[in-house]
Amino acid sequence: MPFDPTSLKYDAAGLIPCIAQDAASDEVLMFAWMNADAVAQTLATGRVTYWSRSRQSFWIKGESSGHVQRLVELRVDCDRDCLLALVAQEGPACHTNRRTCFYTAVRGGDEVELMAPMA
Amino acid sequence: MPFDPTSLKYDAAGLIPCIAQDAASDEVLMFAWMNADAVAQTLATGRVTYWSRSRQSFWIKGESSGHVQRLVELRVDCDRDCLLALVAQEGPACHTNRRTCFYTAVRGGDEVELMAPMA
Repeated sequence: MPFDPTSLKYDAAGLIPCIAQDAASDEVLMFAWMNADAVAQTLATGRVTYWSRSRQSFWIKGESSGHVQRLVELRVDCDRDCLLALVAQEGPACHTNRRTCFYTAVRGGDEVELMAPMA
Repeated sequence: MPFDPTSLKYDAAGLIPCIAQDAASDEVLMFAWMNADAVAQTLATGRVTYWSRSRQSFWIKGESSGHVQRLVELRVDCDRDCLLALVAQEGPACHTNRRTCFYTAVRGGDEVELMAPMA
């Protein structure tokens, strides 16, 4: 059936969470939010586009940093209230210049850093 | 440094989103929410424990279904407002009896089902 972004379930602020996963490495890269227009734009342009809650504006990933996310496939969860974007990521996904935003882990009660920023 | 669940950033409802990823297959399985106590319980018990927003109670994954998630590693993102739980999943993660909750994809403008429920 044709996909309609308005068929998704958005929260009270009109947003839906989106997980970005590297389509090649399967690494989970980041987590951000979209509204219905961002979902539609992402599908129309192939450039992953979030909604920035802090700036209250569209956030075309990589527009200022160059670290573009190209959409490989958009998936929807069972409750239609979360998205999984499989992406081709150019450069680091994280604003700290690391490949992924999830770069610390809890091990033996301590929080340890798993990777350094990319050169 | 020692990990303290209260060092995470929770939303106005006291919740933080958590992505569950299969530690063996790297498949993203599901997305749910935790509060600080659920984070602490997950670490203490090794059983992934969410906070059910609909029931307003702890949700020890698999407690009723038997589809237990054992914690392999908990990771934290750069903004400390999202968690990634690497898990060992017994049986299907999704309440529809599918391996993952993300079982439809947008392809060529249509939404298609990627997998059937497990037998």
